[in-house]
Amino acid sequence: MSILQNLRNGSVPAPVRTAAKTEHVGAEHLADLVQQGLAAVPANPNHTSFRRFSAIGKGLRTKVNANIGNSEVHPSPADELEKLDAAVAAGADTVMDLSTAGDIGALRRLVIERSPVAVDTVPAYEVAVRARRDTGSTGRFTTEFLFEVVEEHAKDGADFMTLHCGVTRSVLAELDTHPRVTNIVSRGGALLARWMRENDRENPLYENYDRLLDICRQYEVTISLGDGLRPGSLADAGDPAQYAELDVLGNLVLRAREADVQTIVEGPGHVPLDQVEKQMQEAKRRTHDAPLYVLGPLVTDVGAGHDHVTAAIGGSLAALHGADFLCYVTPREHLGLPTKDDVHKGVAAARIAGHAADVARGIPGAAEWDEKMSRARRALDWDRQLGLALDEKTARSYYEQAHTGDETDACSMCGELCAFKNFADDDEDRPTARPPRCPV
Amino acid sequence: MSILQNLRNGSVPAPVRTAAKTEHVGAEHLADLVQQGLAAVPANPNHTSFRRFSAIGKGLRTKVNANIGNSEVHPSPADELEKLDAAVAAGADTVMDLSTAGDIGALRRLVIERSPVAVDTVPAYEVAVRARRDTGSTGRFTTEFLFEVVEEHAKDGADFMTLHCGVTRSVLAELDTHPRVTNIVSRGGALLARWMRENDRENPLYENYDRLLDICRQYEVTISLGDGLRPGSLADAGDPAQYAELDVLGNLVLRAREADVQTIVEGPGHVPLDQVEKQMQEAKRRTHDAPLYVLGPLVTDVGAGHDHVTAAIGGSLAALHGADFLCYVTPREHLGLPTKDDVHKGVAAARIAGHAADVARGIPGAAEWDEKMSRARRALDWDRQLGLALDEKTARSYYEQAHTGDETDACSMCGELCAFKNFADDDEDRPTARPPRCPV
Repeated sequence: MSILQNLRNGSVPAPVRTAAKTEHVGAEHLADLVQQGLAAVPANPNHTSFRRFSAIGKGLRTKVNANIGNSEVHPSPADELEKLDAAVAAGADTVMDLSTAGDIGALRRLVIERSPVAVDTVPAYEVAVRARRDTGSTGRFTTEFLFEVVEEHAKDGADFMTLHCGVTRSVLAELDTHPRVTNIVSRGGALLARWMRENDRENPLYENYDRLLDICRQYEVTISLGDGLRPGSLADAGDPAQYAELDVLGNLVLRAREADVQTIVEGPGHVPLDQVEKQMQEAKRRTHDAPLYVLGPLVTDVGAGHDHVTAAIGGSLAALHGADFLCYVTPREHLGLPTKDDVHKGVAAARIAGHAADVARGIPGAAEWDEKMSRARRALDWDRQLGLALDEKTARSYYEQAHTGDETDACSMCGELCAFKNFADDDEDRPTARPPRCPV
Repeated sequence: MSILQNLRNGSVPAPVRTAAKTEHVGAEHLADLVQQGLAAVPANPNHTSFRRFSAIGKGLRTKVNANIGNSEVHPSPADELEKLDAAVAAGADTVMDLSTAGDIGALRRLVIERSPVAVDTVPAYEVAVRARRDTGSTGRFTTEFLFEVVEEHAKDGADFMTLHCGVTRSVLAELDTHPRVTNIVSRGGALLARWMRENDRENPLYENYDRLLDICRQYEVTISLGDGLRPGSLADAGDPAQYAELDVLGNLVLRAREADVQTIVEGPGHVPLDQVEKQMQEAKRRTHDAPLYVLGPLVTDVGAGHDHVTAAIGGSLAALHGADFLCYVTPREHLGLPTKDDVHKGVAAARIAGHAADVARGIPGAAEWDEKMSRARRALDWDRQLGLALDEKTARSYYEQAHTGDETDACSMCGELCAFKNFADDDEDRPTARPPRCPV
C-alpha cells in the first residue's frame, strides 16, 4: 500500500513518523498535511539505504536539493558519487541524479544504494540518451519504451521522479502565439516537445497519466511535475506558456491526489526580483497548494560564475512567499558541470536562502539558531561560533587561516578596534578587558 | 565653493555633469536630485586621480562599495593596494579604506592617489589607533585631536567620510532600557560610545556638528552618517536604539542640507528577510529620503563563510525597497580579513544584488542587458555570453575549464540533451541541426 493509501486507512507509515520527528511537528499533523497533498514525504521502499526522510511542504523547514549526474563531456561515476557525498555532507535534503551520459542505469543504482537522502531521477533523460544510442536521434522512442524506463527507475528505488507531464500540445501552442526570448530551457520539456512535434502526437506522459499514476502508486514514487515551460530568462517570466502549463499541472495534482500518489510541483526558473512573490502565489494557487519546488529562481540572467548567489536571492524570497523546496544552483551553472567544491558551495548558498526564509516564516528553531550564534559572537567564543555556522567546514577553514597563533587577543578583522572589546555593556568598569572565553 | 553652493548659484559642477552622463540621466535632473539631497556625488577636488564619478541616490543605478584596509594581524599596504585594484576591476563604484593598523595616513594617501573611484575613510579608526599608540587606550583622545584627524582626511582627498554623529547619549540610553543580543557592532560607534562613557560627555561629532559641516563644505567631503547602533544580529533589528539613532541622523541630514554639505545615511546590518522592506522604508522616511547605504543587510547570522551570499539576499531586497548603495560583504566576513579573491567575490555578489534590483526598478538599460545575455544563450553564442557576463573573468575561466577543445558541439552541462538543440523554435525542419554560432 502507498503512503497515501495507508493514511486514508488511518495508519501513519514509518517514513511520515520519522519525518515528523525531524521536523519537530506532530506525526498526526504531518499525516494530515500529506493526506491533503500539502506536504510530501518521498520514500520509495526499494531505496533501502534511505535514512533521512524529508517532509516537503506547508509550514515545514525549507528543503534543499542538489543535482548530480554524469555528462557527455566527462562521464565519471566515481566523481558523481563523490559529489553525492559532498552534497549530503553539506546538508542537502535530497539529490537528483540528472545523468545524461554513460551507463545511466548503473550509476542511478549506485547513487540510490549509497544515498541516505531521498533521490530523484528524470526518466526522460535516459530515454533520450538510449534512443540516441539506438536510433541516432534523441526523439525516436516509443511510449512503451518510455514507460519501461519509468518503471525501471521506480523499481530501482527512485523516491521521486521528475516527469514533464504538463508539456501538452495546447501549452506548446502558446509559444507560437507568444514567442519567447529563450523558448524551452528545460531539457526534459524540450525532449518531450521534440517527440511531440516529430510524431505529431500528444505528450505521452500526459496522455497516459493514469498509467504513470499506477506505477508511482505501486512503487511509492512521488511525482515531481516538471515545469517544461519554465522561463529561462527574465524576459519570459510569467508569460502565457508558463501559466498555461501550471494550470495543466494543477489538474494533474488533483488527479494524483485521487489516485493516492504524492506530488510536488516544479517552478521557475528565471524571474525578476519584483515578480517572485506573485509567481509563488500563482503557482500555489494554480496547483492547489501542492509542495512547490523552485529552480532558483535566478533574479538576473547575467550572473554566470556566481549563479549560486543569483539563485539564493530569488530562492530566499521564493521560500518566504510559498516555495517549500529549493534546487541548488552552483557557481558553474550555465558554464559547465559542477565540481565537488561547486556542489558544496551550491548547497551552502541554497541552505542560507532557505534558512533566511525559515527565520522570517517563524519555523520553530530557526530564529533561535541565529540568536545562539549571535550570543557566541558577542562573547567572542570562536569554538561555539564555528560549531554553530551553517557551514562549519568552510567557516573553520577561514578562521584557521586568519588565526595562526602568534596574534594578540584579537580577530584578524578588527584587532583592538573590535566593537565588543571597546564597548562592553556587561562590563562597565573595565571596557578594555578581554571578553569571556576570548580564544587566545 | 562646494557642489551644493554651486548648484544653488545655478551652475552644475563638472562631477555632477560627468556622473549624469554615466547614469544616462540629464545633468539638470541629477543637479535637481543633488540639490534636494536625494542624491549625492562624492567628489573631493583633492582626490586628483578621481575619474569615475558616481551619483548615489533616487532612481539611479544601485552602487557598490568595497572595503579595504590594513589590519593589526597582517598590515601590508601592498596587499591593500592590490585589493583596491581587484575591487575596481570587479566593478566597485567606491572603496572605503578601513585601515586599523600600520601607518594609516600613508596608506590612505596611497589609496586616494591610486583610486579612480570615490574613496571613503573613517577618521575615528585612525583617532583610536593613534590614541592607543600614544596613551595605551583607544578611548583617550581630545575633541581637538579628533577634528585635526578629520581635517587631515579631508585635505588628503577623502571623497566621503563615515562619521558616527548619531551615537548620542539619549540614543545610548535606549541600550540600557532595551538590552540587545549583540549590543554595539559598529567599530566607530563603539569607539565613540566608549569615549562618551569614559569622559562622561556627549558625542563630540554631534556636539560639534557645525564645525564638522564647515570642514566638509570647505573640502567638498560628503558625510556618510554612520549607523553606530545598527543591529548586529537578527534579534536586534528594528529595536528602539536603531530607530532613535535614525531619527537623530534625520535631523543631521537636514542641518547638512542647510549647510550645503552632501550626505548619505548608513543603514543595517543584520535584518530578518521579512523586515528588510519595512526597514528601508523607515530609514528613508526618518532621514528625509537621503541616499541610503546599507551594510548587507545580512538575512541570517549563521552564514559565516558565505556571507557574501547572505548579504546579496538582503542587499537585493533592500535595493528594491529604497537602498541606493550596497556595501559588499566578502565570504570571509566575521572570520578574518578578506583576500584579494574574496574582494573580487564580494564585489561580484553585491553587483548581482544591485543589478537584480535595478532590473526590477526599471533602471534604464538594466533589463536590456539581461535580454541580450539570454539571446546570446539561446544562440549558444559563447563569446557573446562571456562578454556579457557581469563577471566576465570568472565566467570565462569556468567556460575554458569545461571546454578543452576535444568535445563535441555541446556544452559540458547538457551535451546532446541541450534544450536549445532539441527543440529549436526557429528551425522547425531540422531540430537536430547545430544552432547558429555554436562554439565548436
